[in-house]
Amino acid sequence: MDTVSLSGKELAAAINADTKARTAALAADGPAPQLALIVANDDPASSWYVNSLRKAAERLGIGCDTVDLGADASVDALRAELAARSADPATDAIMLQTPLPAGVTLDDVSSSITSTKDVDGVSPLSLGLLASNLDGFVPATSEAVVELLKHHEIPLAGRHIAVVGRSNIVGKPLAQLLLAENATVTVCHSRTTDLPSVTAATDIVVAAAGRIGLVTGKHIREGAIVIDVGTNEAPDGKIVGDVDADSVRDKAAALSPVPGGVGPVTTALLMRHVVTAAENARRA
Amino acid sequence: MDTVSLSGKELAAAINADTKARTAALAADGPAPQLALIVANDDPASSWYVNSLRKAAERLGIGCDTVDLGADASVDALRAELAARSADPATDAIMLQTPLPAGVTLDDVSSSITSTKDVDGVSPLSLGLLASNLDGFVPATSEAVVELLKHHEIPLAGRHIAVVGRSNIVGKPLAQLLLAENATVTVCHSRTTDLPSVTAATDIVVAAAGRIGLVTGKHIREGAIVIDVGTNEAPDGKIVGDVDADSVRDKAAALSPVPGGVGPVTTALLMRHVVTAAENARRA
Repeated sequence: MDTVSLSGKELAAAINADTKARTAALAADGPAPQLALIVANDDPASSWYVNSLRKAAERLGIGCDTVDLGADASVDALRAELAARSADPATDAIMLQTPLPAGVTLDDVSSSITSTKDVDGVSPLSLGLLASNLDGFVPATSEAVVELLKHHEIPLAGRHIAVVGRSNIVGKPLAQLLLAENATVTVCHSRTTDLPSVTAATDIVVAAAGRIGLVTGKHIREGAIVIDVGTNEAPDGKIVGDVDADSVRDKAAALSPVPGGVGPVTTALLMRHVVTAAENARRA
Repeated sequence: MDTVSLSGKELAAAINADTKARTAALAADGPAPQLALIVANDDPASSWYVNSLRKAAERLGIGCDTVDLGADASVDALRAELAARSADPATDAIMLQTPLPAGVTLDDVSSSITSTKDVDGVSPLSLGLLASNLDGFVPATSEAVVELLKHHEIPLAGRHIAVVGRSNIVGKPLAQLLLAENATVTVCHSRTTDLPSVTAATDIVVAAAGRIGLVTGKHIREGAIVIDVGTNEAPDGKIVGDVDADSVRDKAAALSPVPGGVGPVTTALLMRHVVTAAENARRA
């Protein structure tokens, strides 16, 4: 079978057009929406991502202030910066970039981001609002997976979907979103016994484990849909996904490419969240 | 095969002995721990449960104040009561009983319960703390399932577990807890396509859908472990689970009974949460 490529470019462009118009409307009447991007690492994949976010913000008219606290920033320094930005009326939105310094977890610091500015939905309150089906910012990568599937008119209700990866900011929130879409959801991870047989029993496989080549043809049934959330740096410096595209091709009905699949939609949704946060702040 | 009965009575008794001692220690030095039980329904199964909670509290030396707001209480009246109890220094713990009045959802009101007193872990912040693996009160029924499995020395890491039911206070938090135990988790629900084949592919099936007889022998593989979370009122007034015990027996390796399985452990854990909330308040 011919594997359809589930590009995210068209969807991202549509979201960005809307965001640009909303940003312009805000800027006509006050300051442009302002994003604070907090970095505390010297990871190349992270720098690449931060750069792409800065460029995306610039293209849309969103102000972006990058704060580099250094790869040895302490929990206290991170919390203080996040709390200061949470209190700062000139900051509409806050994103904390991972990886964090050695020994610091996202959960050590994420509650210092106020939920109204938490545009990547990482704080405990944001995650709890999601678990309760209440309004709040949803982690953008998870939301991008669902939006990409919907954009390509892939029905989710009653489908069995395997999510490979159980991180607090991708796998677990994605499971919540897919359940809300009436999918049956299996969350797999590094401790799953016989991963290929578990994922091959499902209709849609979402690879979100952060491991190059983790999902192969062996992991999917004929005609499955495969979404690749991975953004890993290959030895040659290229950004590659979690799916071994060559072995999946011609068996999968559809596969999202890396780059150009989930990635641009994630960035577009983050920027949409920034302008939403700014709109909410103006109204408040 | 002989199906083992996974009783919760022994475990509940051990938890209760500890709670009783901790309650006595607090009461020797100040007021006894105090639980506010907020009711807004005239459902017989709920009355039965409220009664059993009151008796459990009494046996352990915990004060229990039942506030009946009536089956037509408004969202505002519920929020006001929960907020007042959250602010009241004489109240250590708050439990909001379901069902709620017609048109009112738990999510409409649960954020009015402060997380330090939210002993059944229903508020968005409590659910988010769970999703972030941070300290907070976990919904007692979900915790009871995990504790019951551990008490009976059933390994969870690497096992495939089906959770049937996706409520915000049982199915979804239970999935989080089981993932933290390194299980592979499939969440099924009323919209799952071919439920028997999905659940029969797993090692452990947890029935938490609130439907009498939903899980039958057809839904499990030979040798599976079955946990019955249901507490439904049968036409004859008896409390029965979600599992058709007769058809599961001799096929399942083990089955938790209703009553006497998850139920007593849930009550014991709730009471443990009450004394923990009181200890935390004294220390604060």
